[in-house]
Amino acid sequence: MKNPPTSNQSKAFGFGTQIRKSPYFDATVRWGAAGFSVYNHMYIPRDFGDPEQNFWNLVNGATLSDVAVERQVEITGPDAATFVQMLTPRNLSTCAVGQCKYVLITNADGGILNDPILLRLAEDHFWLSLADSDILLWAQGVAVNSGLDVTICEPDVSPLQLQGPKSGEIMQRLFGDQINDLRYYWLGEFELDGIPLIISRTGWSSELGYEIYLRDGARGDELWELIMAAGQPFGLQPGHTSAIRRIEGGMLSYHADMDRHTNPFELGLDRLVDLEMEADFIGKAALKKIADQGISRKQVGLEIDGDALTAANNEFWPILIAEKQVGQVTSAIYSPRLKLNIALAMVMVEHSALGTDAEIVTPFGRRSVRVVDRPFYDPKKSLASKV
Amino acid sequence: MKNPPTSNQSKAFGFGTQIRKSPYFDATVRWGAAGFSVYNHMYIPRDFGDPEQNFWNLVNGATLSDVAVERQVEITGPDAATFVQMLTPRNLSTCAVGQCKYVLITNADGGILNDPILLRLAEDHFWLSLADSDILLWAQGVAVNSGLDVTICEPDVSPLQLQGPKSGEIMQRLFGDQINDLRYYWLGEFELDGIPLIISRTGWSSELGYEIYLRDGARGDELWELIMAAGQPFGLQPGHTSAIRRIEGGMLSYHADMDRHTNPFELGLDRLVDLEMEADFIGKAALKKIADQGISRKQVGLEIDGDALTAANNEFWPILIAEKQVGQVTSAIYSPRLKLNIALAMVMVEHSALGTDAEIVTPFGRRSVRVVDRPFYDPKKSLASKV
Repeated sequence: MKNPPTSNQSKAFGFGTQIRKSPYFDATVRWGAAGFSVYNHMYIPRDFGDPEQNFWNLVNGATLSDVAVERQVEITGPDAATFVQMLTPRNLSTCAVGQCKYVLITNADGGILNDPILLRLAEDHFWLSLADSDILLWAQGVAVNSGLDVTICEPDVSPLQLQGPKSGEIMQRLFGDQINDLRYYWLGEFELDGIPLIISRTGWSSELGYEIYLRDGARGDELWELIMAAGQPFGLQPGHTSAIRRIEGGMLSYHADMDRHTNPFELGLDRLVDLEMEADFIGKAALKKIADQGISRKQVGLEIDGDALTAANNEFWPILIAEKQVGQVTSAIYSPRLKLNIALAMVMVEHSALGTDAEIVTPFGRRSVRVVDRPFYDPKKSLASKV
Repeated sequence: MKNPPTSNQSKAFGFGTQIRKSPYFDATVRWGAAGFSVYNHMYIPRDFGDPEQNFWNLVNGATLSDVAVERQVEITGPDAATFVQMLTPRNLSTCAVGQCKYVLITNADGGILNDPILLRLAEDHFWLSLADSDILLWAQGVAVNSGLDVTICEPDVSPLQLQGPKSGEIMQRLFGDQINDLRYYWLGEFELDGIPLIISRTGWSSELGYEIYLRDGARGDELWELIMAAGQPFGLQPGHTSAIRRIEGGMLSYHADMDRHTNPFELGLDRLVDLEMEADFIGKAALKKIADQGISRKQVGLEIDGDALTAANNEFWPILIAEKQVGQVTSAIYSPRLKLNIALAMVMVEHSALGTDAEIVTPFGRRSVRVVDRPFYDPKKSLASKV
């Protein structure tokens, strides 16, 4: 069964200079980018042909993706560490220089404003590598009356993601053996033909991968071509972040799977909240209250019956039990590896038990669904064989 | 001469639920919207066919535009008025209940974060009707340590713009004679078939016009159809905000003509800054310093020689004098009424005098330009005749 064409699949034109181009924009167009979305006020390529092929390129080889839209909020100054801890419920007391942490940024109500990667470049030098919201404004706003000595800006930094099982070999060719010392969720300072870079072993793919943070926007085209050339013997393909792979891995997309009305406990991200630490952070009182009272909604995985979905959902599909709405599908897709329709959803906590049966309402009719465990695919556990 | 097709004119697809749909989304598609851009994390229709026809529809009749992307930041509570004054350099002491003000939101450096319309709905009830940046996060961030008793949220409010010389008659048919009491930059509370609305005599067109703020997202389709039906005898057309008309009027587009690195004085918006008022506001010290030292850049109008531009600029075009860059074009377009290429630009102050000659570098070659006065078209002054 085919989804009917949905109306936001229309073409969008360039409408002036209101939306910025990435330093890799021209390179991605040269390498086949045919469609763009918008994220943090910038164009992001999201179409290099068949998304299923993009997925196989990622999981069997390697893909290079322009994620310059992951803007950095840079926090420096004598009080930088105190200030950064104020922004997140995660206990950062063990975050060493050179380390990265996945963190949630919460507001005074405990609602999630963003889920960036925090990079600690020096004792008093941090980057927040952002999902899609203006945390620069949030952080500058919080700083106004904080009495803390910090400087907050968006530096000239534009990340690429090199992801997939072959990414390690490509990085070795580019940077030599020293790249092997880079551990999961650590970062290092590198150079390529004099291009200044930060590299971290992070990504949004659940595969082996690297993020390469260009620190000179004028050299984007050059960097892209150097990496593509080094990757050529390994079959490196230009690509985009794969919705299939990230949903398989249970990774979250801001605005889709959570927003400022979502709290960390609803997502099962209790490990990112430390209510016992001495340091204060924004949202602590609200999150304590939620922890005491318990949550009313919970994120779950779903398997969706019926024919393969031909595309991701472009609406939040209602979830029904006995004709009563008990939640909504936030991200749904067909996994060609699992040969299953899989989804992330937010449901009332009393309907979140594994094995719960429900129905969803889509633009192309109703489907039966069942609550299942996440991640949907884990190379260490899954019986699904890699193709 | 034709512009070469620029690469961000590629199609963009729906890529999931990360970007929100307006309550008018389905209605706009039904009425012919063929392309969308993204603004404040939402789709905005920007293509109802020929943009020149959209311009004539606006200036000779009336157009209805979905501007639900103008999200509202609602500020309420006993300290709301004090807090709102803290957000803007404009002196709000004379802002009455029921009044609207065009304001700039500045950060501690005096840089512009947004240029919303402020609506005062009650003594302690304000909306900021936003351009494209997350001022909700800025305002919530500022509030954290402010010690002020305010509540800040994004309410369920979605504006439409009904603009053009016929908009008054259409509004009269919809709301009766009481609408005539609504003065320029004032607002009122209205209902249409039980649909709760706020209406203000504002807009982004330099034409007679109204903004209609729907206060119940579930009734967007109904509201759109009611207005289109009432407008039918007056030739009302569905449309989008007109880049041609707003540039003719010298109106600014956030991210294009200004951003957080721009200060109000560079834009000639001194009237929106009161450095003498007693109340403190964020950016006051920085703006005092800039006022003392003088500005180094200034916004100007340009006329561009040569054949008609076939579309708005999708890059910031460099401006050269004697082969040295002295500024950049921020918004350029062909005005079919003036039969001129017109542009807004930011240039070094020493090259900002009226009559200054320069060159611009575009993807389709160089053009001669000349600094001219803004607005380019003023119905009270211009000799250009209305068609």
